Amino acid sequence: MTIRVTVWNENVHESTEPEILSIYPEGIHGAIGAAVSALLGDDVEIRLATLQQPSHGLGEEVLESTDVLIWWSHIAQEDVTDDVVSRVYERVMRGMGFIALHSATKSKILRRLLGTSCCVRWRHGHDRELVWTIKPDHPIAQGLPEVFAVEQQEMFGEFFDIPDPDELVFLSTFSGGEVLRSGLCYRRGFGRVFYFSPGDQSYPVYHNPHIQRVIANAVQWAAPERAFVTSPTSAATARRAGSRKSSRGTRREDGPVHQALRRSFVGGGCRYRRRARIRRHRPAHPRGLPRDAGGRRVDRVLPTAVRAVADPRPDRHDRHDRRRSLPR
Amino acid sequence: MTIRVTVWNENVHESTEPEILSIYPEGIHGAIGAAVSALLGDDVEIRLATLQQPSHGLGEEVLESTDVLIWWSHIAQEDVTDDVVSRVYERVMRGMGFIALHSATKSKILRRLLGTSCCVRWRHGHDRELVWTIKPDHPIAQGLPEVFAVEQQEMFGEFFDIPDPDELVFLSTFSGGEVLRSGLCYRRGFGRVFYFSPGDQSYPVYHNPHIQRVIANAVQWAAPERAFVTSPTSAATARRAGSRKSSRGTRREDGPVHQALRRSFVGGGCRYRRRARIRRHRPAHPRGLPRDAGGRRVDRVLPTAVRAVADPRPDRHDRHDRRRSLPR
Amino acid sequence: MTIRVTVWNENVHESTEPEILSIYPEGIHGAIGAAVSALLGDDVEIRLATLQQPSHGLGEEVLESTDVLIWWSHIAQEDVTDDVVSRVYERVMRGMGFIALHSATKSKILRRLLGTSCCVRWRHGHDRELVWTIKPDHPIAQGLPEVFAVEQQEMFGEFFDIPDPDELVFLSTFSGGEVLRSGLCYRRGFGRVFYFSPGDQSYPVYHNPHIQRVIANAVQWAAPERAFVTSPTSAATARRAGSRKSSRGTRREDGPVHQALRRSFVGGGCRYRRRARIRRHRPAHPRGLPRDAGGRRVDRVLPTAVRAVADPRPDRHDRHDRRRSLPR
Amino acid sequence: MTIRVTVWNENVHESTEPEILSIYPEGIHGAIGAAVSALLGDDVEIRLATLQQPSHGLGEEVLESTDVLIWWSHIAQEDVTDDVVSRVYERVMRGMGFIALHSATKSKILRRLLGTSCCVRWRHGHDRELVWTIKPDHPIAQGLPEVFAVEQQEMFGEFFDIPDPDELVFLSTFSGGEVLRSGLCYRRGFGRVFYFSPGDQSYPVYHNPHIQRVIANAVQWAAPERAFVTSPTSAATARRAGSRKSSRGTRREDGPVHQALRRSFVGGGCRYRRRARIRRHRPAHPRGLPRDAGGRRVDRVLPTAVRAVADPRPDRHDRHDRRRSLPR
Repeated sequence: MTIRVTVWNENVHESTEPEILSIYPEGIHGAIGAAVSALLGDDVEIRLATLQQPSHGLGEEVLESTDVLIWWSHIAQEDVTDDVVSRVYERVMRGMGFIALHSATKSKILRRLLGTSCCVRWRHGHDRELVWTIKPDHPIAQGLPEVFAVEQQEMFGEFFDIPDPDELVFLSTFSGGEVLRSGLCYRRGFGRVFYFSPGDQSYPVYHNPHIQRVIANAVQWAAPERAFVTSPTSAATARRAGSRKSSRGTRREDGPVHQALRRSFVGGGCRYRRRARIRRHRPAHPRGLPRDAGGRRVDRVLPTAVRAVADPRPDRHDRHDRRRSLPR
Repeated sequence: MTIRVTVWNENVHESTEPEILSIYPEGIHGAIGAAVSALLGDDVEIRLATLQQPSHGLGEEVLESTDVLIWWSHIAQEDVTDDVVSRVYERVMRGMGFIALHSATKSKILRRLLGTSCCVRWRHGHDRELVWTIKPDHPIAQGLPEVFAVEQQEMFGEFFDIPDPDELVFLSTFSGGEVLRSGLCYRRGFGRVFYFSPGDQSYPVYHNPHIQRVIANAVQWAAPERAFVTSPTSAATARRAGSRKSSRGTRREDGPVHQALRRSFVGGGCRYRRRARIRRHRPAHPRGLPRDAGGRRVDRVLPTAVRAVADPRPDRHDRHDRRRSLPR
Repeated sequence: MTIRVTVWNENVHESTEPEILSIYPEGIHGAIGAAVSALLGDDVEIRLATLQQPSHGLGEEVLESTDVLIWWSHIAQEDVTDDVVSRVYERVMRGMGFIALHSATKSKILRRLLGTSCCVRWRHGHDRELVWTIKPDHPIAQGLPEVFAVEQQEMFGEFFDIPDPDELVFLSTFSGGEVLRSGLCYRRGFGRVFYFSPGDQSYPVYHNPHIQRVIANAVQWAAPERAFVTSPTSAATARRAGSRKSSRGTRREDGPVHQALRRSFVGGGCRYRRRARIRRHRPAHPRGLPRDAGGRRVDRVLPTAVRAVADPRPDRHDRHDRRRSLPR
Repeated sequence: MTIRVTVWNENVHESTEPEILSIYPEGIHGAIGAAVSALLGDDVEIRLATLQQPSHGLGEEVLESTDVLIWWSHIAQEDVTDDVVSRVYERVMRGMGFIALHSATKSKILRRLLGTSCCVRWRHGHDRELVWTIKPDHPIAQGLPEVFAVEQQEMFGEFFDIPDPDELVFLSTFSGGEVLRSGLCYRRGFGRVFYFSPGDQSYPVYHNPHIQRVIANAVQWAAPERAFVTSPTSAATARRAGSRKSSRGTRREDGPVHQALRRSFVGGGCRYRRRARIRRHRPAHPRGLPRDAGGRRVDRVLPTAVRAVADPRPDRHDRHDRRRSLPR
C-alpha cells in the first residue's frame, strides 16, 4: 500500500535568509520530500505543507489522508495555532505516524505527544556530529553503518528532557565531547512517533545520504499498517461511532484499520465503554479434543467473545461528561 | 525530610450523592489523606484541596510547597481550568511527584503528562478485582503480597491507551476475565508520575489497607529528593534564571535541588542553552598517576567543566522566540 | 528472501502418551510446522528436528542455515546437551531468531538467553485462557482481535521470573483470576527472542488459528534481515575472522548481514577491536559552507577520530585470554 | 539495616605488574572497599575476596551473608570456576545485588546474567572519558553533576552488545568521538544488577571521587530490601523448602524477605506450585455495600478463585524432571 507522506515546514528561514535558501533552494521541506521520494519511489506519495498556507496546509482533508507527517519547525513554534496542534495530535492518536526533526523539540505538538519540556543543551557553531547506531536490528537502522559523520552541524546535547524512549536507536557525539540520545521511538495512541535530532537550516544536513536514509526508514516504520481485527458486530459499533463524528469527515476512512482507529479514539472521548461479557466455559470433554472439533469450538466461541464487546446500556460516563454546571 | 503532600479531589460525588458520602464521610480526599498520614506519620505533611476552592485549591503558593500531588477526578474533568492544569504540569516538570487515581485517566493533566488518550475499557457493576504484584523489588510494592483482592470494584480493562510505562508494577484481573496494567510508573521532566487504577466512589476501595499501602509507598517513591549537583557558578546561573521568573514566586525555593529544577525548566523555555566548552585534556604523565595527584587533578578540572556550562553570548533562540510577526 | 525455519520439539510426550499423539498425530513440531507453512507459504522453508536425532537434529549445518528456530520442550529439558545449548546460544548472538513456547520456560537455552530462572506459577487442569492484545501496533499482533479465548488450557501465572521484556505484546488471564505476561519480545546479541506461553501437549492449543497466527507473525518478526552496513575494510576483516573460524563452517555465510554477524560475535570473543571507517559525505552543494572554518575543521578533526579508533598494537586482551596459568 | 558488601577482584595485575600495584597499593578491591566504607560508614560492612582464595573467596557462607557483590575481573575471566559462577548466579536470583565493573563485561557471570556476549569496542591508550548523567532522578545519580571527567582512561565504545537496560543512567564519550552506554541497571530474578564501565587497572580511576560516589550509590540501590509479604501458609511452605536445602546453609536466613527469596528460586527449580492466599479485606464501614449482591457475589467468587489456585495432586512436573532415561 502506498504510504501518504506530508512534509511540513515552517518555511521561515528560507523566506528571510538568502544564505539558507542557497542551501535549500526548494526549502527544507522540498529537500526532504525529494529525498524520501527518491529513496522509496512508488511506495510513497509526497505532499508538502507550510506554516503560511491556510490551516498551515494541515486541514482536515490533508490530515485524514496522511499516513505519516514529517515536521520541521524552529523559530515560529508559537505561530502554529492550537487548533492545528490538536488536530495533528488527535490524528496521531488514531494512527498517523509523526516524525519530528531537529529543533521541533520545542514544537507544541512534540511536547504534547511526549509530555515533557524537550529542553536540550545546544551550541550554534561549526561542529561535527558523529551518529552511532546502537540498535542495528531496528527497522530505522537498516542500511546504515555503525557510525557516520555529519560534517557541518550545530550541537544538541544532554541533558535532554524527554521520556525514556521505547527504543533508543541512535546516539550522537560532538566535537566538545557532548552526547545526545538522537534517534528516539515512541508509541502514542495508535500512532508511532520518531524524533531525529540531526538537521539544521544553516548546514546541508538533509543532503547527507545517511540522514536521508534514516528519514526514509522512519517513514516506513511509522506508517499505520496495523490495528485490531474487528468482527461484523464491532464494525457496526464502529460505524455508529463513526456516524456520530461524521462531521469530522472520518467517514471517508474505511477498512478494519480505520474502524479500529475510530473506535480507539473519538475526539478526546473513548469508545471502550463496552462490557466484555465473556461467558465462563466448562470444557465438554475431559480429554484433549480432536483437531477439527477444536477448530470449530474456536469458531463457535469467538463471535461470542466479540459480540460481548457491545453494551446496549446507556453510557453513564457520557452522561456525566455532558454535565456542565456543578454544585459549588 | 518531610514530604509535603497535597490530596486533590473534585469532590462532586460526595456533594451530590448521599450514598457516596456515606462511604467517604470525609470525602475521598479525606480518606486518602488520613490513610497516608496514618501510614507515614511525621514523614509527611498532608493538605487537602478540592475543585470548589479558589484556583481549585492549587494556587502558586500551594503547588510550590507541594512535593507530591495526589489527584482524584471523574465527572468534572472538564471543569478544571486550563490555567491550573498548566501550573500543575510545569510544577511536575520541575520535580513535583504526581499520583493519579482511577478515573483520573480522563483528566486533562494526566493526558497532558502521558501524551495519549488514556482511554480504557470499563464496566460499572459489582465486580471483584485481583491486584497482582509483578515487580516485587519495586519501592511501591514493598509490604504487599503477591496478590490481593478488592472485593467491591468496577472493572477497568485493556485495551488501555497509555505509553509503555517505565515500570509496570501491578496487573489487575476482574470477574469477567478482563485484565489491566493497573500500576504504572513514568518520569516526566524532573517529576515522577504514578497511575493506580483501583478506586471508585461507589465502593470503599480506599479503605482497603493494601490500597492504602500502595498509595503511601507511591508518595515516598514520587517525592523529589534528586537533582544534579550544582557548583557556585551554575548556582549563580540558576539565580539569574530564577530572578527572571521571580514573579512566579519560585525565589522561595532554595537548595541545589530547586536550583537544578529551576534551571531545568522555566515556563516552557529551556535553560540548557549554554556552551559546554570542556577543554581537551592531554595527560601530563604517560604512566598511571599516584592516588593523591589523581584526586587533585579531578579537583582542578571539574570546576572548569562546570564553569564551561555558562555562555555569555546572547541567546539567539530566545530572540527568535520573542518574534511574533512573521513574513507571510 | 525466504525465511528458513526449523521447528524443534523434544517429542517425548508423543512417543509415550497415546492420548497426546491423538491430539498431535504429526507431533507438536509437525502441527506447528504445518501451520506456519500454511500461513506463510513460499516465504518460509520449514524443517523439523527433535531431541532423539543426532545432535538433537541441531548440528552445525542445520543451525547455520536456520533463520528462525522454534523451540518446544517440557519434560526432557535436562536431556538437551550443553554443547547443543551453546551452539544455539551462539547462533542467536549472531542473528538467528528464537521462539520459545509454553514450558520452554524451563529450558536451558531460554534461561541462558534471558538470564533468569523463568519460574512461573502453574496449575494443570482444564482451564480457559483469554489472550489480550495490549500492543496492537506490534508486528506480532497483526491480524489478531483485541481478545481471543483458548478453550482448553493449563494455567501459567505470575509471579513469572523474567527480565522486563523489551516489548510486552500479550497478557493472558485464567479461570482462577490469574494473569500472565504471555507474549514477550527480547533482543539478545544480533538475534530476536519471542516467548509465547499458550500451548500444552494435553490440549489442541496449536490447532487454534489465533495461536497459529501469533507464531507465524513471530517468525516474520524474528527473521534476521538486519545488520550494520560494512565497508571494504571491515568486510576484509570479517573475512579474516571468518577464515579463523572456517572449521565452524561459517564460511558458507555471505553478504553484509553475515559479515556483520560474524564480526559481532565469535565463539565468546569479540571482533570489535578494529578500525571503524567513519563514512564521510562531501555535500553535492558546497554553497553555504563556511569554506575555511568548516572544511579545515573537518579535515583536522576526522583523521584524529579515525586514527583514534585504530589500534596497531597486538591485541593485549586476546593474549591475556589465552593465558591459562596465573600466579597464585 | 547494615548492607553486607563483598568486593571481589581477580587481583592478578596487582600481583604481576608493579606499576599497577603503585596505583592500587591495596589492590583494586582494597581501593573500592575503602571508598565505599568511607562514603557509607556504618551503613555497610565490607569484605574483600579474590580469585586466589579457596572458592575464590566466594564460598557458601560468604555468599549467603552478602547483600551486594562488587566484581572486578579482566585477564583471568576463564579462571573463575563454573561452580562459583553458578553459586553467584543463584544467589543473585534469590536477591543479592551485583555490581560489575569495567572489563567484567567479559566475565562468565555478567554474560550469564545478561544473556548476551557483552562485546564492546575498545582501545587501550591515554584517553579522556566524560561521564554524562542522563537520569538525574535515579538513586545511582544522586550527588553527581551533569557531567564529569575521568582524566586518564581507556576507551570502551559502542557497539556494546547488551540487552536494552531497564534504566540507562550514564552515557560516556571519549577523545575519539566514541560513545558508550556506561551506567546500566537490570533486574534479574530477585536481584538487581548494575554495570558501570569506567575503571581500569592502568589508571587511578577508582580514586576519582565521582566514580566512588557512583559505586557507593549503586551499593545502596542494589541492596535487597524487598520481597513479597508472605502468609503463614506460604511461610510454612518456605520453611519446608528451606529445610530441603538446609545443607546449602540457607537456614540461617530469616524473615519474610529471605522466605520469599527462598520461595522464589531453589537451585534451578521453582517453588511457585502452591496455593496463593488471596488476602481478603472486610471493610470497616459496611455502609453503602449492596448487602446481598455484593456480599454473596464475593463469597461465591473468592473460594472458587482460591480453590482454583491450589493443586492437591502430586507435582507432575517434578516427577518428569526426575526422569533421566527417555525413549529413543
